[in-house]
Amino acid sequence: MAELRKPWGGRFREATDRLVEEFTESVSFDRRLALHDIRGSLAHVKALQKAGLLTEEEAQRLSEGLKAIEREIREGRFKFRMELEDVHMNIERALFERIGPLAGKLHTGRSRNDQVATDFKLYLIDETRDILSLLKDLRQVLVAKAEAHLDVIMPGFTHLQHAQPVLFSHHLMAYYEMFTRDAERFREALKRLRISPLGSAALAGTPYPLDRELTAQELDFEKPAANSLDAVSDRDYALEFLFNSAIVMMHLSRLCEEVILWMSPEFGFIDLPDALCTGSSIMPQKKNPDVAELIRGKTGRVYGHLMALLTVLKGLPLTYNRDLQEDKEPVFDTADTVKRSLKLATLMVSGLKPRAARLRAAAEEGYTTATDLADYLVMKGIPFREAHEITGKIVAYAEEKGVKLWELSLEELRRFSESIEADVYEWLTVEGSVARRRTLGGTAPERVREAIASARRQLESENLP
Amino acid sequence: MAELRKPWGGRFREATDRLVEEFTESVSFDRRLALHDIRGSLAHVKALQKAGLLTEEEAQRLSEGLKAIEREIREGRFKFRMELEDVHMNIERALFERIGPLAGKLHTGRSRNDQVATDFKLYLIDETRDILSLLKDLRQVLVAKAEAHLDVIMPGFTHLQHAQPVLFSHHLMAYYEMFTRDAERFREALKRLRISPLGSAALAGTPYPLDRELTAQELDFEKPAANSLDAVSDRDYALEFLFNSAIVMMHLSRLCEEVILWMSPEFGFIDLPDALCTGSSIMPQKKNPDVAELIRGKTGRVYGHLMALLTVLKGLPLTYNRDLQEDKEPVFDTADTVKRSLKLATLMVSGLKPRAARLRAAAEEGYTTATDLADYLVMKGIPFREAHEITGKIVAYAEEKGVKLWELSLEELRRFSESIEADVYEWLTVEGSVARRRTLGGTAPERVREAIASARRQLESENLP
Amino acid sequence: MAELRKPWGGRFREATDRLVEEFTESVSFDRRLALHDIRGSLAHVKALQKAGLLTEEEAQRLSEGLKAIEREIREGRFKFRMELEDVHMNIERALFERIGPLAGKLHTGRSRNDQVATDFKLYLIDETRDILSLLKDLRQVLVAKAEAHLDVIMPGFTHLQHAQPVLFSHHLMAYYEMFTRDAERFREALKRLRISPLGSAALAGTPYPLDRELTAQELDFEKPAANSLDAVSDRDYALEFLFNSAIVMMHLSRLCEEVILWMSPEFGFIDLPDALCTGSSIMPQKKNPDVAELIRGKTGRVYGHLMALLTVLKGLPLTYNRDLQEDKEPVFDTADTVKRSLKLATLMVSGLKPRAARLRAAAEEGYTTATDLADYLVMKGIPFREAHEITGKIVAYAEEKGVKLWELSLEELRRFSESIEADVYEWLTVEGSVARRRTLGGTAPERVREAIASARRQLESENLP
Amino acid sequence: MAELRKPWGGRFREATDRLVEEFTESVSFDRRLALHDIRGSLAHVKALQKAGLLTEEEAQRLSEGLKAIEREIREGRFKFRMELEDVHMNIERALFERIGPLAGKLHTGRSRNDQVATDFKLYLIDETRDILSLLKDLRQVLVAKAEAHLDVIMPGFTHLQHAQPVLFSHHLMAYYEMFTRDAERFREALKRLRISPLGSAALAGTPYPLDRELTAQELDFEKPAANSLDAVSDRDYALEFLFNSAIVMMHLSRLCEEVILWMSPEFGFIDLPDALCTGSSIMPQKKNPDVAELIRGKTGRVYGHLMALLTVLKGLPLTYNRDLQEDKEPVFDTADTVKRSLKLATLMVSGLKPRAARLRAAAEEGYTTATDLADYLVMKGIPFREAHEITGKIVAYAEEKGVKLWELSLEELRRFSESIEADVYEWLTVEGSVARRRTLGGTAPERVREAIASARRQLESENLP
Repeated sequence: MAELRKPWGGRFREATDRLVEEFTESVSFDRRLALHDIRGSLAHVKALQKAGLLTEEEAQRLSEGLKAIEREIREGRFKFRMELEDVHMNIERALFERIGPLAGKLHTGRSRNDQVATDFKLYLIDETRDILSLLKDLRQVLVAKAEAHLDVIMPGFTHLQHAQPVLFSHHLMAYYEMFTRDAERFREALKRLRISPLGSAALAGTPYPLDRELTAQELDFEKPAANSLDAVSDRDYALEFLFNSAIVMMHLSRLCEEVILWMSPEFGFIDLPDALCTGSSIMPQKKNPDVAELIRGKTGRVYGHLMALLTVLKGLPLTYNRDLQEDKEPVFDTADTVKRSLKLATLMVSGLKPRAARLRAAAEEGYTTATDLADYLVMKGIPFREAHEITGKIVAYAEEKGVKLWELSLEELRRFSESIEADVYEWLTVEGSVARRRTLGGTAPERVREAIASARRQLESENLP
Repeated sequence: MAELRKPWGGRFREATDRLVEEFTESVSFDRRLALHDIRGSLAHVKALQKAGLLTEEEAQRLSEGLKAIEREIREGRFKFRMELEDVHMNIERALFERIGPLAGKLHTGRSRNDQVATDFKLYLIDETRDILSLLKDLRQVLVAKAEAHLDVIMPGFTHLQHAQPVLFSHHLMAYYEMFTRDAERFREALKRLRISPLGSAALAGTPYPLDRELTAQELDFEKPAANSLDAVSDRDYALEFLFNSAIVMMHLSRLCEEVILWMSPEFGFIDLPDALCTGSSIMPQKKNPDVAELIRGKTGRVYGHLMALLTVLKGLPLTYNRDLQEDKEPVFDTADTVKRSLKLATLMVSGLKPRAARLRAAAEEGYTTATDLADYLVMKGIPFREAHEITGKIVAYAEEKGVKLWELSLEELRRFSESIEADVYEWLTVEGSVARRRTLGGTAPERVREAIASARRQLESENLP
Repeated sequence: MAELRKPWGGRFREATDRLVEEFTESVSFDRRLALHDIRGSLAHVKALQKAGLLTEEEAQRLSEGLKAIEREIREGRFKFRMELEDVHMNIERALFERIGPLAGKLHTGRSRNDQVATDFKLYLIDETRDILSLLKDLRQVLVAKAEAHLDVIMPGFTHLQHAQPVLFSHHLMAYYEMFTRDAERFREALKRLRISPLGSAALAGTPYPLDRELTAQELDFEKPAANSLDAVSDRDYALEFLFNSAIVMMHLSRLCEEVILWMSPEFGFIDLPDALCTGSSIMPQKKNPDVAELIRGKTGRVYGHLMALLTVLKGLPLTYNRDLQEDKEPVFDTADTVKRSLKLATLMVSGLKPRAARLRAAAEEGYTTATDLADYLVMKGIPFREAHEITGKIVAYAEEKGVKLWELSLEELRRFSESIEADVYEWLTVEGSVARRRTLGGTAPERVREAIASARRQLESENLP
Repeated sequence: MAELRKPWGGRFREATDRLVEEFTESVSFDRRLALHDIRGSLAHVKALQKAGLLTEEEAQRLSEGLKAIEREIREGRFKFRMELEDVHMNIERALFERIGPLAGKLHTGRSRNDQVATDFKLYLIDETRDILSLLKDLRQVLVAKAEAHLDVIMPGFTHLQHAQPVLFSHHLMAYYEMFTRDAERFREALKRLRISPLGSAALAGTPYPLDRELTAQELDFEKPAANSLDAVSDRDYALEFLFNSAIVMMHLSRLCEEVILWMSPEFGFIDLPDALCTGSSIMPQKKNPDVAELIRGKTGRVYGHLMALLTVLKGLPLTYNRDLQEDKEPVFDTADTVKRSLKLATLMVSGLKPRAARLRAAAEEGYTTATDLADYLVMKGIPFREAHEITGKIVAYAEEKGVKLWELSLEELRRFSESIEADVYEWLTVEGSVARRRTLGGTAPERVREAIASARRQLESENLP
């Protein structure tokens, strides 16, 4: 078009239309919603028929046409065309080519605004269920691994310094708690996902007597959305999905950080199967925990997607604006990333082997039972702060001498406090330390065994929604 | 001064560098947790007494000492000292100064790690309840405003273009839905907030028989945390608070964007009371919707805080690391921002006045009943896509002629389709258009009235948790 | 097939798990670096030959092999294989298949760590140059459009309220300034991009006498990196690219926001060609500024990518970690997004037409010359703050009476200040207001004309780097 | 009190609500700009005098008044009042109270819009200079530390696995490179900071003949901004400051991550002075690298602030909107955070002591000279990929046998390749490995010594801008 020929010369070779078409099309990514789109259309057909807008025969022809297209898509035979802009128009066009002008009745009382919101929610319900199932796998593997190594003691860390000895199983069960919370959040988000936008049309509802309860039921939603303007503008559910995924990735990044540390020659706390590591092109001896590094790295990607959609939605006036087309790619990539990361993390936890002797030895390093010594003094009646100060001096003395706490003689110990007696030595071993931490949620073997049993019960009773 | 020695001073031989002290102190901001810290300590005293670690008399002296400090804080008489590093040490030191060495028994079986997590959760439970109450205020004002202006018709927008006429009340009720979802999310997050870390001690639990169920109950938690390592490393609840706040701000930013647009001379859709606007130092005629602009701007701040804490937590190995000290400031500022923004938004909605005539006139601009014309044709049996095409031609014709749809003669209309008859004119008015959108969630007055009634019932039956 | 063994296959005894392979592969996206990889290899061959590690004949065979593969890639005939993990191994394998074991000499003194950093920088240099060229196009169109409409007056806005009349051209030239700063930043970043990592090998440098100055020169870098550990860990340049892109998108989002506002029926400030808008599936009359909305929306995507890479890099120990593989996708998508957005924005600015009469009328609305009245009073010797207050009262009076400032009689005006005389009326027109703002950078036509001329000179003298 | 009337109070009839006042005030944080505000006003007085808008005597009285206020502020005697909204009105009011109605002339030809932009830029110029100076301190300490420990060999890491031996000094110098790039970016940003908005007034320029070149010069700007609309809307410079700070923090987070790892009992690579560590309230033996942890944690804060301001600016129409008031707090907190983090990091690097023997022993662990063995084979004429495979097998053999490479007999080695001869043993030591990496930027002692010398020259020749 001459109007659009530009003073800045013949530099763009493509026609303006073509550039705009490429810029605004979404079928290259929203095709992923194709099957959900057809599900939505099938429900809409029922509502149109009930409203008397389609005869039974018309409804049947439309449904059969849609199902035939569904088969084509499932079998990979459907050809999406960019020039038809989006998945919705691609399917409607295919329907027209298959059944003729009757196809034109399908869009009655519907708009792409409520249609795409419906498709997107149906898609996210499926992804949420998949993620819940993968979280369950990972939680099961954590519990199994914790159960299998109940006898392994390791140093518990604060500030990446040895703090107190803990059970390796107790450490794994901390991750069980995190991923259980994650599952809880995804379940709660399902409630808001399962509210149907269908029937809101462009923004204001429709003049046709479409039964929105019916379509909601057909699509396994719990109920129809209460306000049509909100229904087509709302993307809270996508944000919740991104945020819940971001926390999963954060938890995975903490686990992976530990796996990477533990695999370093300095730590040497665990082994990973070769299949989960990769090597170096120039250093043949390397056994790199690449999978853990990549999961950790992918955390950034999901954080970024969350920030992206928050930015898109900031300050958008009601109702639908084309900016909202930017909601899908971050969500799709997040779903893929979280699912793959969960699968690999499950493999990783399943494959990792604690090096018990090394962990046991490390647990003894760094005066990890110093707190026990302080606790011993408290038991003997010394106020905690004073007990703490005495212990500090004993540790300083032992450190200077280069010995462990239990290598000090009773006489040496008594120089710091007369309350110390021969029974103190039971308090200074790592086994003793662990065994004594019997409060609820503590690291004593009996507590950890109970936590494992309770987790098993929880997992068994849990139904995927 | 010996009194001011660091709690871990026993071991260190060098004086703590002043710069380090300033860099690592947290009392300048965590003093905000002072009252929650005392609540936690009071509960801990009960558990210590029950465990036989304190006599009844000791427990009473400790409790009275703590309560005296609480009064000092409430009355603004307490002097926080930076050199005591954090809120916990400030209070413990004050207790020591008040009741002597017995104060040293308070920290038995406790660590700053479980203490700060407990304080922070207690704080967030309070803030969550405040926000739920403020959200309720805003929702009530939206419903009241919607009810007061049920007769106002405005243009519904997509792409900031006129799409279809809608009720002004229907538009307001879209925001009611958003803030209702927000409240739902904050309520769900409460469940995870109400799990008590107290008794997890440094990371591994304690050797003292502390009754964690008791302290949980005392502090109005639902139950104790199941894993001590997780309990001191977990900050999911802070992230949830930030995310739920970010969505609130996003919703407010959309509302404020609309208020700003509507206040522009070009829109002129509403008036705001002078008290909610400010002027210009150089342009005396300006009436700027500063409050709406500021709330919109503050969205960035809350997004940033969410991103900040997500970054802090990424890849942190278990359990406590000093990085976690960075959890509080973003949360405190977020709580303040959200609460103030909700209050101001409530004032703003309460004060805004729709300019009914201007809105009504705008609703007629831009062929907003074109869809109704298409719907009319569908009712006459024409497939939707065809009806849509005919309507497009009629609109183009009217636009060229510079008239509204209802200003076309029947003869002119019938040139485009013989199905058009005299009854078409009822379909072309904005009142007719609105009235016909009677599907559930639609903009028809009866639907909106029902939505308002339902919202009122919901608000009345809702108890703050 | 032995041929397809991983390069680090010698040591591993277990087969690489399929899932791991899919998770860790990068060829699905880093294939985009294929041509840059070959450029890098060609330079490396020269260095190997100079170092005596290849005979002239070997060097020639390697180079020819590489060039043949380059042709295959350019012509779309090259088949990338996921099981070969990344672009580097794909090309090396193809070289092996083409010229046999000699291919094995290519990786001498090189590692994938310096190789990928080199490829990535070469890629980013190209993208940066493209973006600079597109920014220049947009700046040229802005200048041309500003020049073409020098007579159009519009209301200048603060707080989306009318503030003072300005030239439409002056408004456009504000964007010229923004995109000029953007270009400046991209140019500066080029300096850091043009530092060659090649020759740093895995992390420590190589024992071979490779001439790093030579390879730097061959690849049009300015110099070799000074520290091998830094050279393989550094991704600052990718962050800079993302940040510079984020600012471009932010500027575009402001422009697009204005275009969307201006296209609304309420503003009606401009027209856009149909080719740059799209319609609605249900509302045939809509002319939606989709392109502007999409560009505005895509801002979120680029912000997200910046946040993603910042997150990846946070807290990574030196040197190469697999997390770094996550650097490419955000950068690739950002480059595509910015380039496409700039092209479309250029089309959009080029195609937009100001509706001069509407703008002129709006410029008169809202007492936009009130400041001029205050300025007039100052010229008559009244202190600014007092002048300001008098003006405020006059505006309030005029507003109440429902007239413009110039519609007040001299007598009425003089009631507020005796300093007002007949010459005041010259100060109250929008033309007069604009014309008087003659300070450097002001909106007076002569100033804007100068700014345009100066921009033209700048654009002409500017060489793309 | 009339004195306290808002500057735009003339028109408004309702009292400003207290809540609104608190919400919109900025003096609680922008008071930090007070001295810059006065500098700006002093320059403006000169321009007003030159333009004939002030007599010499008036100009002198205004300047003296401003300087008196400046002294009050410097001496902490100035009382900021929230009800006066912002720093600008606080100072203007104080001037009025000091010199009477003449104060009202100061705001002639100026608006808070150009005033605040000027103040903010002056502030950022100062902060940038401070940061450049602190970066220089840190770089100097890195170079000094590198020079002092040139004989320490450590394992170079990839994937947190031992890769090849490197000099500890070479590792430190990698950070020198990072912080040098950071300084470069801050310097470049200064160019854009040093462009003066003053004289742009509200948005359109002023009708007074104010000499913008003069005020720019007075304030040490390089030139006046070219477009008044842009000058009052632009916040690119604040974003650049935030981004440049974010990269500094990212670099610091990498350094701190390494310090934390190195301080762990497992690594034990370094010692830190007690003064830079803190202890635990319950575990007296702990020596926690809190400073490093806190700096790493504070990275999140700065990332968050960057994201906050990017969000604020997204989609803002021109020119000034109140959202822009949200630009200051993130910038102030970022400047404080970066400066304090740099100071502490400088102390930390200065205080850290490598444990040379431990590092040397670690460098020998993990077959770190395997690459050297491969390189040896290449030197003997074997293609790299084949040499690599042979080496892989030898390492696997040694690993199985539990010996280091140099502990294999020549006979054993020759079983894998006949090319291996007695001279191979020189290639297998860590000293030999390091010494051989002589390419530019490599880890050979002579190269590192050169790098140190070159850094020293650079630091000496560098003038702070």
